[in-house]
Amino acid sequence: MRAIFGNVLVGQSGGPTAAINATLSGVIRGVFAAEKKGLVGDIYGMRNGIEGCLAENLINLSERFHKGSSQNTEAMLHRLESTPGAALGSCRMRLPDPETDDSVYARLLEIFRKYRIRFFFYIGGNDSMDTVDKVNRYFLKQEYEVRVVGVPKTIDNDLLGTDHTPGYGSAAKYVATTVREMMCDTAVYTVRSVTIAEIMGRDAGWLAASAACAGENGAPAPDLICLPERTFDTEQFLEQIRRAWETHPNVMAVICEGIRFADGGYVGAGFQSGTTDVFGHRYLAGAGKYLEHICRERLGCKVRSVELNLPQRCAGHLASACDLKESAAVGRAAVVAAMHGQSGVMAGIERISSSPYHIKFKTVPVSQVGGGVRTVPDEFIREDNFGMTPAFLDYVKPLIVGEARPFYRDGLPEYFYF
Amino acid sequence: MRAIFGNVLVGQSGGPTAAINATLSGVIRGVFAAEKKGLVGDIYGMRNGIEGCLAENLINLSERFHKGSSQNTEAMLHRLESTPGAALGSCRMRLPDPETDDSVYARLLEIFRKYRIRFFFYIGGNDSMDTVDKVNRYFLKQEYEVRVVGVPKTIDNDLLGTDHTPGYGSAAKYVATTVREMMCDTAVYTVRSVTIAEIMGRDAGWLAASAACAGENGAPAPDLICLPERTFDTEQFLEQIRRAWETHPNVMAVICEGIRFADGGYVGAGFQSGTTDVFGHRYLAGAGKYLEHICRERLGCKVRSVELNLPQRCAGHLASACDLKESAAVGRAAVVAAMHGQSGVMAGIERISSSPYHIKFKTVPVSQVGGGVRTVPDEFIREDNFGMTPAFLDYVKPLIVGEARPFYRDGLPEYFYF
Repeated sequence: MRAIFGNVLVGQSGGPTAAINATLSGVIRGVFAAEKKGLVGDIYGMRNGIEGCLAENLINLSERFHKGSSQNTEAMLHRLESTPGAALGSCRMRLPDPETDDSVYARLLEIFRKYRIRFFFYIGGNDSMDTVDKVNRYFLKQEYEVRVVGVPKTIDNDLLGTDHTPGYGSAAKYVATTVREMMCDTAVYTVRSVTIAEIMGRDAGWLAASAACAGENGAPAPDLICLPERTFDTEQFLEQIRRAWETHPNVMAVICEGIRFADGGYVGAGFQSGTTDVFGHRYLAGAGKYLEHICRERLGCKVRSVELNLPQRCAGHLASACDLKESAAVGRAAVVAAMHGQSGVMAGIERISSSPYHIKFKTVPVSQVGGGVRTVPDEFIREDNFGMTPAFLDYVKPLIVGEARPFYRDGLPEYFYF
Repeated sequence: MRAIFGNVLVGQSGGPTAAINATLSGVIRGVFAAEKKGLVGDIYGMRNGIEGCLAENLINLSERFHKGSSQNTEAMLHRLESTPGAALGSCRMRLPDPETDDSVYARLLEIFRKYRIRFFFYIGGNDSMDTVDKVNRYFLKQEYEVRVVGVPKTIDNDLLGTDHTPGYGSAAKYVATTVREMMCDTAVYTVRSVTIAEIMGRDAGWLAASAACAGENGAPAPDLICLPERTFDTEQFLEQIRRAWETHPNVMAVICEGIRFADGGYVGAGFQSGTTDVFGHRYLAGAGKYLEHICRERLGCKVRSVELNLPQRCAGHLASACDLKESAAVGRAAVVAAMHGQSGVMAGIERISSSPYHIKFKTVPVSQVGGGVRTVPDEFIREDNFGMTPAFLDYVKPLIVGEARPFYRDGLPEYFYF
């Protein structure tokens, strides 16, 4: 490995999570540690990801976080870690192939030279790893060396190359807690009812699956969990509800927003806006509302659908301590990997064991990550397709452990704002 | 005051909250204290309110909570206090006027005689206080003496005769926290957007108003808060959004589900099911979805509407410590009032001062409570009608203070189930 010296650039991209700022803090802490050893210079943050970077909208994080005492630095980083969203801002910009159109990359090179950037960290999901791969490929052919490392985050838990993704544990804790609490609420009446909880997830049902935790330790379990990994069948769905009514009047059905019929059409497709984002993904909405109508018409009962919506990815007050800790650690691991000469890789998590829970960090070539989707494997899905297996619970339970409580002032959590 | 001795009956009614079980616990604690003084016998809980009572579906709470050691009693009551929902179950049953149809009351008398019930506590909102009033009126004319006391609860904070209602503080803390967190989330992109948060509330906007707390202590404030106390005007609404865009791209609009146009029609009335509950209230839904469409069409921007839905009334994990403490205390105060001979009253809260926050408990004739709605007064609403005044913040801030954290096991809050 040839040693290079320079500054660091870090950005956040894609949808926010409750843990992406913990990863940013981890990268900053990793860089500060490397700085002490004389390995790197300053760290810059790009506002709004690669989009802000191209507009030279950078912020010197070394200056920002080194102001005042080391206690002050620590307090700022701690507050950053518990803040949901993406403190630096985000973007959803798809870069062109560097082999066919290198104009934006030439602009990147210009900015990197100007700020003497030699280390580039990009925190994001699948689409962000595509950016990492392309930037890395471009710089491999340049005389100006840059080490490009991706750091995963997504509540969807669908990235290849990692046991689980930072951000998933906190979202899963929110979903399981909220489903348990809604079941306390809906259980109060004696008339038959169906409550449908619609959970985020396009092609992978990891987050909806986490609702199974609500039924642990003697609490009532959700009656149905419907994942996109299984074809949705309306008749089977209604039959499951009727069967649940044999033992209790209030049914809780958890559905992933991405469930589809046998013909491949999304459940509730008629309720969709039809618009797509820049990556060609369709905006999904409406499976819950659609099934609410179906239940009302076919079962003639009281029905309510609850879209868990934004709070499932931004409930910082209910973040998983395990998730925040790992999210920060994976950021530091990315810095260490770059210092050791790695580039074109994504930092990831490898599970050693579930009980006791033990993990280690690793890197994987980012080219093997981008575009792929890790779905929920068969052994995690119950044979009747409407619930999760004990093996899944073994997998997910360690990830939601611990309460990472932010600092409260006047009754509300205090967050970090740039 | 003539002393009477007998057993106690307690029930919960109406929509659940995160604090109604704290009040139940307070009543139980109050009765246990009175029992030690030899003032009362056992306490029975009615399953599913007055409906379960008429079906003689009672549970002996003295037996249930006195099992095992006093430590065990304390642990069970503590868990009950932090549990959302209504642990005894609830109902929405409207009693007939005792003067015109006394059949259900005769049945009540029969059950009261059988279980030697002399004290009747009913925890609920406006409709439940109507029940308290009727039951009290009936028993005033009987030879069998019963003391009937209402204990308030509602997230809507719209009951007359009390400074605020148990349950409101926890819901307000949830709303303010969630709005603050959603603003962290929606602030990440640079494109203009509108996020509409739809908050529960029929004729009073207290809960939507609590979102104003999100902007305290340097955090960004919601851009608009629309209450049912003010006529909704679409053009003014859009104008406020355009004005907010002059300083930042991501607008947060908080709306109460009960907002209406000048003609009295609910905003988004076309989206409603048209069904009514047994009290003649229309089920509301859709103001958020309706305004989402309006914004998309008229402003041509990215819009998302988020219905906070059930979690705002059942998020036990985020309950206000002040609210839970007061909710339990008002339950104990109701027992004390009954022991002192009061009947036909509702226990309530009187505010001595906001800073320092100091309250005392009182009782009011329940006949003055039922049917009335306490709306947000003019001095709490900003002159432009789209926000709250400092006087309102002085009022609401003490109510959301303190984190009443439940016990966590395997990453999830543990709740109480009968």
